[in-house]
Amino acid sequence: MTAKITPSVRAELEAIVGAGQAFSDPDKSCDYGHDEFSMREIACEPELVVRPATTAEVAAVLKVAAAHAVPVTPRGGATGLCGGCVPLCGGIVLSLERMDRVLEVDADNQMAVAEAGVRLSDFTEAVEAAGLYFPPHPGDESAMLGGLVATNAGGSRAVKYGTIRNYVRGLTFVTAAGDVLRLGGKLEKSSTGYNLMHLVIGSEGTLGVVTEVVLHLKAKPGITRSLVVPFEELEPALETVPLIMKGGIVPLAVEFLEIEPVILTEEHIHKRWPTKLGTTHLLVILDAPTEDEMDRLSQDVAEACVEKGAIDVFIADTPSKQDEVLAIRSKIYDAIKSGTVEILDIAVPRAEVAGHVRKVREVAARHGMWLPTFGHAADGNVHTHIMKARYEDGRMVPVPESEWRAKADLVREELFRDCRARGGVISGEHGIGLVKKPYLSLVLDEPQIELMRGIKRIFDPRGIMNPGKIFD
Amino acid sequence: MTAKITPSVRAELEAIVGAGQAFSDPDKSCDYGHDEFSMREIACEPELVVRPATTAEVAAVLKVAAAHAVPVTPRGGATGLCGGCVPLCGGIVLSLERMDRVLEVDADNQMAVAEAGVRLSDFTEAVEAAGLYFPPHPGDESAMLGGLVATNAGGSRAVKYGTIRNYVRGLTFVTAAGDVLRLGGKLEKSSTGYNLMHLVIGSEGTLGVVTEVVLHLKAKPGITRSLVVPFEELEPALETVPLIMKGGIVPLAVEFLEIEPVILTEEHIHKRWPTKLGTTHLLVILDAPTEDEMDRLSQDVAEACVEKGAIDVFIADTPSKQDEVLAIRSKIYDAIKSGTVEILDIAVPRAEVAGHVRKVREVAARHGMWLPTFGHAADGNVHTHIMKARYEDGRMVPVPESEWRAKADLVREELFRDCRARGGVISGEHGIGLVKKPYLSLVLDEPQIELMRGIKRIFDPRGIMNPGKIFD
Repeated sequence: MTAKITPSVRAELEAIVGAGQAFSDPDKSCDYGHDEFSMREIACEPELVVRPATTAEVAAVLKVAAAHAVPVTPRGGATGLCGGCVPLCGGIVLSLERMDRVLEVDADNQMAVAEAGVRLSDFTEAVEAAGLYFPPHPGDESAMLGGLVATNAGGSRAVKYGTIRNYVRGLTFVTAAGDVLRLGGKLEKSSTGYNLMHLVIGSEGTLGVVTEVVLHLKAKPGITRSLVVPFEELEPALETVPLIMKGGIVPLAVEFLEIEPVILTEEHIHKRWPTKLGTTHLLVILDAPTEDEMDRLSQDVAEACVEKGAIDVFIADTPSKQDEVLAIRSKIYDAIKSGTVEILDIAVPRAEVAGHVRKVREVAARHGMWLPTFGHAADGNVHTHIMKARYEDGRMVPVPESEWRAKADLVREELFRDCRARGGVISGEHGIGLVKKPYLSLVLDEPQIELMRGIKRIFDPRGIMNPGKIFD
Repeated sequence: MTAKITPSVRAELEAIVGAGQAFSDPDKSCDYGHDEFSMREIACEPELVVRPATTAEVAAVLKVAAAHAVPVTPRGGATGLCGGCVPLCGGIVLSLERMDRVLEVDADNQMAVAEAGVRLSDFTEAVEAAGLYFPPHPGDESAMLGGLVATNAGGSRAVKYGTIRNYVRGLTFVTAAGDVLRLGGKLEKSSTGYNLMHLVIGSEGTLGVVTEVVLHLKAKPGITRSLVVPFEELEPALETVPLIMKGGIVPLAVEFLEIEPVILTEEHIHKRWPTKLGTTHLLVILDAPTEDEMDRLSQDVAEACVEKGAIDVFIADTPSKQDEVLAIRSKIYDAIKSGTVEILDIAVPRAEVAGHVRKVREVAARHGMWLPTFGHAADGNVHTHIMKARYEDGRMVPVPESEWRAKADLVREELFRDCRARGGVISGEHGIGLVKKPYLSLVLDEPQIELMRGIKRIFDPRGIMNPGKIFD
């Protein structure tokens, strides 16, 4: 059992980080009780927010927490969508926000070393200033590196270069007992014992705290170009994706979108999407070293799209046109947020996306729910939004709670079952956190979850690290 | 403590796999007591070789072994170089060789499903017959897929697309208790609980048995081309590597070689290397979608090499010229095998390779040892060969054991210490097995190894899986 923070424990913690960096006044601490999950009813009050400035301070805090069995919930940018950083059992919210330094951009090794509290936007800026490139682009650029690692964040640009896991080469990791471990390093290869680094990636702060990250960087790409391709129907749009990939082209991103959320987002951020034709659009982002190569790739992608019946192919080739398209894609979430109950994050095999989205539409029609669905087509990662609103003539219209609440549970469960039947998982990139925990056993067998519980006990025998998350 | 195989246990095992597939006559079983490690003194006699044909049989065998605490050593192609499949504590050698079917090449999802006993050469053939491509090329194509996963095999073609870890999407995994788990699937993304799949990759058969593998495939590349680039000296050759990569070119492979082993290999396999100029050669393999793009890449690589003082640039562009170059590269191991004591597998940051190889040469000179050194320059993965021979005028001349044995231990330890000082690890792709076990604590701290021991206890509470490997 975990314990409350006594005055003497609080004094010990204040001595480590300084009195101003450990606080519990509700005015300041209430911001530390939730993430971006839309339903604020899952929020919990932290007993104490602690903001260490160094790995050594994190280790000292964890030693105190371990000694007194006080729960510790690590917190990054709090851009999560499953309640992963909600302090469910009270205790310490350990905010990494002060550990915000990019320590090194090492051009010879194409590696960067940065603290866990560096925001993605700041990291990208530092890397690009050094003439290098970090492709990952999860939706929210205010996410912090530690959180990206904790959830194995993906985003749209995972098609060509993979999720965060594919970039992490080293971690500084503080165990629940307060030991500081260096996992990996500036290394492209390692087969030296069990790979604890890969185990920590995606473990959602339940095994310990990541304080520093070594990330692999790419050389800057020559050119990027975005294609927006409208289709009359869903199926041919999604069937185009394997066709593009089989042709040997690996785009940076292949997104699919429905027209309604795009229209709402145009309004929301006052930008223009290239076309309103059709019902389903593909957004294909290409990178290439030269104009010639880019022309060849664009041509091949356009031909595959036309072969499958695309209405037209719109090319955003100037930076400003590309920015407009990408801004709309990344702000859809914001535009429909006020009507969103929950964002699903199902991942299925690429060739199963069309079938799964068909199922979404069938479920939507049957329950009379609006379930806008878009996502990362080439990754098989589908974000269906369960809504408490309907779409009417370019506007969202709220639906009374009595109409959506019970249906939301039915929709979620039906789609998770469809996911399982297709060999999928309930989270492709957001993690399980608190919100998806009741459904973990739908896609994982009990002996598998039991091994996870065993690993948790080894890393965290007193159960203080982010308790109540992923599984019970 | 593990137990011996009694007649009744043997009868249980024979009932599972059939009498002919469980044998102990030394004529047949002695082949199952070692891998490719050069010093046969580490070999151990298996008590019983068991050759299951299905995952269900593997599970049944493990249930019997667990019930009686009989050690189980899984065995693939036995091409390992660290004694990883030596049955150190007797018991069962579980050979996967009969599970040799490629079950599916799924073009739409760009995935293949194959049993663990499929040899890499057969797998590659099946994949290419379906018009797809599997780039990894560890030295020995008779390696089996299960073993590639167990060691997270790398090889020369890891620069662009990574090691085996980057290709594995799913595993069928039989636990030490005989439970069959499906880890991952035909999925490009998953953040659904701890990633047990990535923990199993590289765990050298000590956590359970991999029986099936889901592997990501690439579309066929248009063209490949190999460049052989001689340099007068070591340093400029190795300093060229970060320069090529920073320029935005990501070759399929960047190898460095010394001229002496190349000369011996020409003799050994009666093929010709393009040049004998200089002391150190780079072998750069490029892939590109078109001839134009290939010309551009080759030109850029050649310019970087000349900038660093390359003597010349030889291009192997026809399939037969390329085959000749690649054959020599991959047969060096064979050519000097009779004089090899041990192959080191140190991995350091890319920019540290030059410094580490300089250290190798200094150690070689000081001890009067021949330490031919080559490897995967862009991956930072250096294979120094500790030899019981010296090189003289195109021949290997044996050195008496009294001269090399004590020195071999000193050399190994000095180079491992240099590796640690550079932030490296003692195995980049071969694994720890039995041979490198005494040195694990040189590069990993005790709390890290203690977590590994804890994980081992969770997966394998009776300690039956490949006992005595990686750590004690």
